[in-house]
Amino acid sequence: MKEPRKITVTEGDSAIFNNNVDYCVGTGRIGLALSREYMDELRFVQEHIGFSHIRGHGLFSDDMSIYHEYRDSDGNTRVEYNFTYLDRVFDDYHKVGIRPFLELGFMPSRLASGTQTLFYWRANTTPPHDYNAWCALVTSTLTHLVERYGNEAYEYPIEVWNEPNLPGFWEHADMKEYFRLFKSTFTAIKALDERFRVGGPAVCGGTDEKWIRAFLEFCRDEGLHPDFVTRHHYTIEQPEEIGHYAYAKLMDPEYGFANLQTTRDIIDSFDEFRGLPIHITEFNSSYTPKGVIHDTNLNAACIAQQLSRLGDVNESYSYWTFGDVFEELGVPYAIFHGGFGLVAEGCVPKPTFWTFAFYKKLKCAGSDCVHKDDSCVVVRTDDGGYAGVMWNIADSDGGELTLTLALPGGRESCLMTQTVDEDVCNPLRVWHDMGEHPHPDESELRLLRDAATPLVQTERIKPEDGMLTHTFTVGRNGVVYFELRPGEIKSDRGYDYERTVGQTM
Amino acid sequence: MKEPRKITVTEGDSAIFNNNVDYCVGTGRIGLALSREYMDELRFVQEHIGFSHIRGHGLFSDDMSIYHEYRDSDGNTRVEYNFTYLDRVFDDYHKVGIRPFLELGFMPSRLASGTQTLFYWRANTTPPHDYNAWCALVTSTLTHLVERYGNEAYEYPIEVWNEPNLPGFWEHADMKEYFRLFKSTFTAIKALDERFRVGGPAVCGGTDEKWIRAFLEFCRDEGLHPDFVTRHHYTIEQPEEIGHYAYAKLMDPEYGFANLQTTRDIIDSFDEFRGLPIHITEFNSSYTPKGVIHDTNLNAACIAQQLSRLGDVNESYSYWTFGDVFEELGVPYAIFHGGFGLVAEGCVPKPTFWTFAFYKKLKCAGSDCVHKDDSCVVVRTDDGGYAGVMWNIADSDGGELTLTLALPGGRESCLMTQTVDEDVCNPLRVWHDMGEHPHPDESELRLLRDAATPLVQTERIKPEDGMLTHTFTVGRNGVVYFELRPGEIKSDRGYDYERTVGQTM
Amino acid sequence: MKEPRKITVTEGDSAIFNNNVDYCVGTGRIGLALSREYMDELRFVQEHIGFSHIRGHGLFSDDMSIYHEYRDSDGNTRVEYNFTYLDRVFDDYHKVGIRPFLELGFMPSRLASGTQTLFYWRANTTPPHDYNAWCALVTSTLTHLVERYGNEAYEYPIEVWNEPNLPGFWEHADMKEYFRLFKSTFTAIKALDERFRVGGPAVCGGTDEKWIRAFLEFCRDEGLHPDFVTRHHYTIEQPEEIGHYAYAKLMDPEYGFANLQTTRDIIDSFDEFRGLPIHITEFNSSYTPKGVIHDTNLNAACIAQQLSRLGDVNESYSYWTFGDVFEELGVPYAIFHGGFGLVAEGCVPKPTFWTFAFYKKLKCAGSDCVHKDDSCVVVRTDDGGYAGVMWNIADSDGGELTLTLALPGGRESCLMTQTVDEDVCNPLRVWHDMGEHPHPDESELRLLRDAATPLVQTERIKPEDGMLTHTFTVGRNGVVYFELRPGEIKSDRGYDYERTVGQTM
Amino acid sequence: MKEPRKITVTEGDSAIFNNNVDYCVGTGRIGLALSREYMDELRFVQEHIGFSHIRGHGLFSDDMSIYHEYRDSDGNTRVEYNFTYLDRVFDDYHKVGIRPFLELGFMPSRLASGTQTLFYWRANTTPPHDYNAWCALVTSTLTHLVERYGNEAYEYPIEVWNEPNLPGFWEHADMKEYFRLFKSTFTAIKALDERFRVGGPAVCGGTDEKWIRAFLEFCRDEGLHPDFVTRHHYTIEQPEEIGHYAYAKLMDPEYGFANLQTTRDIIDSFDEFRGLPIHITEFNSSYTPKGVIHDTNLNAACIAQQLSRLGDVNESYSYWTFGDVFEELGVPYAIFHGGFGLVAEGCVPKPTFWTFAFYKKLKCAGSDCVHKDDSCVVVRTDDGGYAGVMWNIADSDGGELTLTLALPGGRESCLMTQTVDEDVCNPLRVWHDMGEHPHPDESELRLLRDAATPLVQTERIKPEDGMLTHTFTVGRNGVVYFELRPGEIKSDRGYDYERTVGQTM
Repeated sequence: MKEPRKITVTEGDSAIFNNNVDYCVGTGRIGLALSREYMDELRFVQEHIGFSHIRGHGLFSDDMSIYHEYRDSDGNTRVEYNFTYLDRVFDDYHKVGIRPFLELGFMPSRLASGTQTLFYWRANTTPPHDYNAWCALVTSTLTHLVERYGNEAYEYPIEVWNEPNLPGFWEHADMKEYFRLFKSTFTAIKALDERFRVGGPAVCGGTDEKWIRAFLEFCRDEGLHPDFVTRHHYTIEQPEEIGHYAYAKLMDPEYGFANLQTTRDIIDSFDEFRGLPIHITEFNSSYTPKGVIHDTNLNAACIAQQLSRLGDVNESYSYWTFGDVFEELGVPYAIFHGGFGLVAEGCVPKPTFWTFAFYKKLKCAGSDCVHKDDSCVVVRTDDGGYAGVMWNIADSDGGELTLTLALPGGRESCLMTQTVDEDVCNPLRVWHDMGEHPHPDESELRLLRDAATPLVQTERIKPEDGMLTHTFTVGRNGVVYFELRPGEIKSDRGYDYERTVGQTM
Repeated sequence: MKEPRKITVTEGDSAIFNNNVDYCVGTGRIGLALSREYMDELRFVQEHIGFSHIRGHGLFSDDMSIYHEYRDSDGNTRVEYNFTYLDRVFDDYHKVGIRPFLELGFMPSRLASGTQTLFYWRANTTPPHDYNAWCALVTSTLTHLVERYGNEAYEYPIEVWNEPNLPGFWEHADMKEYFRLFKSTFTAIKALDERFRVGGPAVCGGTDEKWIRAFLEFCRDEGLHPDFVTRHHYTIEQPEEIGHYAYAKLMDPEYGFANLQTTRDIIDSFDEFRGLPIHITEFNSSYTPKGVIHDTNLNAACIAQQLSRLGDVNESYSYWTFGDVFEELGVPYAIFHGGFGLVAEGCVPKPTFWTFAFYKKLKCAGSDCVHKDDSCVVVRTDDGGYAGVMWNIADSDGGELTLTLALPGGRESCLMTQTVDEDVCNPLRVWHDMGEHPHPDESELRLLRDAATPLVQTERIKPEDGMLTHTFTVGRNGVVYFELRPGEIKSDRGYDYERTVGQTM
Repeated sequence: MKEPRKITVTEGDSAIFNNNVDYCVGTGRIGLALSREYMDELRFVQEHIGFSHIRGHGLFSDDMSIYHEYRDSDGNTRVEYNFTYLDRVFDDYHKVGIRPFLELGFMPSRLASGTQTLFYWRANTTPPHDYNAWCALVTSTLTHLVERYGNEAYEYPIEVWNEPNLPGFWEHADMKEYFRLFKSTFTAIKALDERFRVGGPAVCGGTDEKWIRAFLEFCRDEGLHPDFVTRHHYTIEQPEEIGHYAYAKLMDPEYGFANLQTTRDIIDSFDEFRGLPIHITEFNSSYTPKGVIHDTNLNAACIAQQLSRLGDVNESYSYWTFGDVFEELGVPYAIFHGGFGLVAEGCVPKPTFWTFAFYKKLKCAGSDCVHKDDSCVVVRTDDGGYAGVMWNIADSDGGELTLTLALPGGRESCLMTQTVDEDVCNPLRVWHDMGEHPHPDESELRLLRDAATPLVQTERIKPEDGMLTHTFTVGRNGVVYFELRPGEIKSDRGYDYERTVGQTM
Repeated sequence: MKEPRKITVTEGDSAIFNNNVDYCVGTGRIGLALSREYMDELRFVQEHIGFSHIRGHGLFSDDMSIYHEYRDSDGNTRVEYNFTYLDRVFDDYHKVGIRPFLELGFMPSRLASGTQTLFYWRANTTPPHDYNAWCALVTSTLTHLVERYGNEAYEYPIEVWNEPNLPGFWEHADMKEYFRLFKSTFTAIKALDERFRVGGPAVCGGTDEKWIRAFLEFCRDEGLHPDFVTRHHYTIEQPEEIGHYAYAKLMDPEYGFANLQTTRDIIDSFDEFRGLPIHITEFNSSYTPKGVIHDTNLNAACIAQQLSRLGDVNESYSYWTFGDVFEELGVPYAIFHGGFGLVAEGCVPKPTFWTFAFYKKLKCAGSDCVHKDDSCVVVRTDDGGYAGVMWNIADSDGGELTLTLALPGGRESCLMTQTVDEDVCNPLRVWHDMGEHPHPDESELRLLRDAATPLVQTERIKPEDGMLTHTFTVGRNGVVYFELRPGEIKSDRGYDYERTVGQTM
């Protein structure tokens, strides 16, 4: 049992809280966007949350079938592009109201300098054998996007490659070669049109400080001015793998936040780049698509904490990934398999889905933060009320969190809460208890979806001494969204709720 | 706090339980079926519950625009029929997989002998001025239905008029005149085709015993053999009306069950009619469409009790009504107004909706009843498990019901419960607390629908001494559905649920 | 056979053509908007054409159930409003992207000074017995609309009553009483908020000149400044009625256009009102909902002519009506019954539907008219091409119209035509030939819809001497839409269309 | 201009016509069924035509991810199966009402004896390195299908491998090795359950006679009794390839029909196998997915001829393929690219789509064939009328076909025709003329779909001397469907069609 807490907000209190929850979300390789299940899950996510951008790997990988060579009648090798799948995917993105955050990569086999591949789907992660051909591929693709989608295509953020500081993602993690790639790509794009916004170096943790500093030095020395800096952010320790699954411990979150601050500090140490936006183009707890934590309520609570603070020094942070159609380590064996997705197969929302839905509601409710701490964030809403998110990450103390919130307010209000915790919104448990069927049929899916609906509850709150006070109970690994809306009940003529519900047999 | 109970079922135990929950459901006047909201609600009900038949008033009322007279060129008055709206409504019924239970009535103005009308929508409730013209209307309509829908139209049950034992519904409640109507109608239909099935007298309580006995005597004396007997069943006392709403006390349910038994007994006292099926063509708690009880959890619990017993002596029992598009007393002022519907405006399911959904699931699960009492009904399922419904009608004792159920079974099982009670599935309270807005907008409706979803929970049950035992807690006015499915958990290679969820920060 | 014509457009040619085809469309009484079929038809129309506003009768008629009186506990009569159906209808309008053009009328029975009613659905067409109560009804309704729909509600045009110059629509066609109604209503609305835009007198032809002049004199004398003037426009002579149907001759269209000009001239003769917009709040060929002409190709061709000229002196012109759910003379007996609708039952588009669709495409294509005459209108498009509509109203000459169009243009182009005529897009004929089944089943409806699809054809046009020339053939009662888009064919590597289609067995 | 023909059918005339048009349809590799576009196209095809079965390659290929090996803790290699994608695809098939015709193949890489692959998607076409493991894969998959889909899974026809008589599809086209595969597979399946139905040898033309004879000799000698024989059927000569496309001449169709007869004759020459059903598990004109003929009206007419005769000696014939999602030679560059599909990208039906739709309508209309020749097939319908399909394959004569049909009949009838020819239903031409845009946007797609709708026309036919006679004109490469339905027109009171449409301005 945790120590009960009381928070008293005073008129004029404020806190820093930049809520960029919906700027971008991650996806498995772009080629998977051709699939029916992928699009069903994305549509579901867009209907309930609504992200602005989507970023994933493999735009130029062979399965997208863009880059081709052939012999002409004179026996010369010539290049041609096939945008059939690109158009299909991006048209579908438009239909669900999402725009690409372009990650340039990986290498088409025919353009590659080597044969190194990564993942079940064999992403070629070697430099181009011909940088001019690479740049032509990039600029031809961008030109095509502008032709098809008009001026909005200039707004798509562009990131050069992914995690070049890992040898799997970039042969030998060759920094000098990456800088060559960045410079030639950046220069070619800006020559095409200055309006395009280009950034890098898309590094993951580990060597991030070294790479980001070197990257900026390189840019400064070469006279390049990237439009933003990108990096990734995962928060677990080395996982243990058993069969198809991976188990890992969470790191102390403060470690991660401190690491993110270093990026901000490095950038701001350059006169040329001070204040340059940082996009976290991937983040999650575990970095493996078989990380069982992703399906749990613990994950939802941890991500709630992340979302309260990631906006402090970053322009955006893209959860990796929106759905469970993902193939890096092969095809999953069961609906719940530790995939990155906010939703599981069959559009079953996981607990973390609701963390995002709640932060999105919070963003729509208001931006004026009156309180933020390790358990909650509260904003003032446009109608003079409040909205907030609370979370309770299970630690060694274990149990419920009791949190009394006292907010300035002189009008009777309705308190509405939506609760996600291990007891009331835990599809993983239901699936487990029902036998862990790999692929539930339609009637089981319906049950799982019902078991994945937050509990909605309401209460009338009356002000006392100009304060609206309520004691919330946040269950183990729970996330609670609340709204406190001022306003009296206006009953229709003759309607008496108390009498209606007060009756007994 | 109620006394905890324990039920121990022994191998071989059985109980009478005829679950005809889905045979028929009621509807506001047929003409309302033209409306968009009506059809949306009906489609919702059919997707989640699925009734076979639908019965409502006003098939021949003016708004259906079937019966017309005109002068021909010789100045003679002639009759013509317009089946435009009939086809539209019945086509739509087919599209959602429901068939009509035909109630013949009320009187087209031009065919009426008087001007008496009932309801906001002015149903003419007088006998025909010309019985031949009435019979022609009936047989022409049936002929048209056979032409359009083929042989299935012979299967539509046909009931002659509605509640003739009330003077509002049948001028002067003139029994002799009703018998005339019945005889002429019955005879005309059977002359058209013997396959049609025709019944009556569709009486409501009060004078039901007298009418049913007299009706059967009449039939016997006239040599008519109706295919079934129909009556209604409501279970409240006289309501008090305040403004737009009505408040009433529930009767002792045993009173109602005893009354239903009298119908059975009367029928069986006739040699000619012994065993004739009884269709309860209307039932509900309150008989007024502004009866606030309909929207409550109390109603859900009371109906759960009714559904456990109505099949004892009746072939079917048609809940009055599936949805809240209903105009007898005028147009409702607000989403929750005490309407009869299982769903409210905007397809928000009321607690009673789930009572029906649960009994429908129970029917699909199995028919072999092993236990039935005042709080629950339990059946054995085809896979060797169990399913059941429990309820806890709030009485003066008030609180939760604790019910321990011990069932024969030797295999580890999954217990799945879906709970509806005042805390977890109570859209009325949410609507009230949020301010009783007459017509919630789309975002409020989404919240109300989430607040109207039963809580799904699961647990693993291990057998002890050949018994599977669990203690259920049924909240105040709660209805709980459960399934107990035998079967071990088959985990995929490497998957460890306990480890997955056991982690802490 | 008509005389072939040739039109040569020279660079710099222009013609007056105000294409306001999509500003407003008419509807049967507002209460019908509750129906499923109505909404299906409206959605279909909005998807394929897309109107901005919708105007119909009966906003305050009893079936909308807005105005109510009751006795309070002191025995005083009090008024209350019920916006349940209003909200339902207007919410549904919003869902299909259309906004109301409010027509204030008719009179709630309880507020009426008399019992005169009009139509099958009994519209009360008498003045209010209490003008204050009427004004309160109007302003309460507007206040409610602003609360529900925000500032956009101030933009809904408001018209006071309908056709008061007919005794059926306004008791005794009492002009003085109408002016009283107008003044009190206008004044009350403007007192509520100056932003509302209010007009009248909504007269039909016959006494229109007299009424409009008197109306403006009244406004001038009373110091009222209406925001616009409204009138109606039908173009047939007195019909002959046989059974359920009406047959009529078309008037010379010039007569109608001249009549419309008189309204413009009268308004402009007032210094105070010069240039005041005119909204034709109803127009069609026949003014009866059993006017068989509405279902024909002749109607499509006549309306094509109307749409080319109605914008000359009028701000808008609202086709009466979008769909065939309409009950003024009772419920139609068959899918094709001469209803006003652009679409028939089951969303079968009539030929006139395409006239509107074509003018809407024309509006999207461009607004720079280069030619307009009695058979066609041609605009220059944004991509340097052309688009146009042609029509061929069958007259005594009968046959096809051959029309050669020569347009300035130096690039090879694609000519695309969509043709509607008696041979290729005539669902009425198909329905007739198949036996005139009153209500086709789903498979017949599918056939009718296919039979109601314009014929699409294309051709490559090469410029000669800087001109693009093509000879069109417009069939009897045909309407043809064309686009002439400049641009070469870019074939994929190896693709040869001529070879592809040139092959034989 | 072709010679006009006249066909007179006499009472009692009959012809052989087995219409198995809807038994089966082909598909690109099963893994493509995961895609959104594939499922949209399949749903469209099922809604408009409705096939019973679907057959395609690659069930066991790597992209379906079924077969896996891993090391257990003892270091032993073990096998596991992943049915995630199989379940997803087959669930989706069920949702659109289609069942698999299982083709067993190709080889999972890990189970393969060699590295030979075929196609862009690298189908491994070598024998298993371990026949026991192969049989276990097959029987485990079938067991899984029975568990998931119940007894209906026993009904799925099963074919062993594809075109083993081509070295690309089966290493070295090694006949002996194929027989080994067949025997072991057949035996393993029958050992699992006798109810499964298994056939082969799935050969294509060329060496078909030799293979089929040898196959049956092998079966006879080994005591195997296959449930059916399978083969393929294509009807073009060797194509010429230019860029991405292939052009070919059609063979004389009689050559193909004669070849099919050889299979029948060979089978029937074996006492053991006489009458064994033949399934043509693939047929089309061209056998290449870049065969431009597939998109043409010529193809539609040729297939119309095929469908009239393929049932003569074959149980079924599966058009290769239902849609254009197909990747054997890589990803197509444009919507029209000579793909096999009945529909093109974006659900644009090609002319051949309608050939199938018409034969399906014919099948629903009746099975009693009264006439069949080289240009048409006519059946008597249940309502005493007729239905038929006509075609006109463009040959050196070129032009229209004029065909007079005289049928016995004494009642006035409605003749309804649906016409597909180069002028009225030719989306390829529209696409070409509009510029051959690789991937049309939504508005162009809508136009293409309208341009791909058959022309519907009707006419009243009156009998003369007991005959109903009509002269049809079938355009170049046209296919015409007709129905002749007896029945008088029953007009509603007052409706006069001739007067309605006879009017002029």
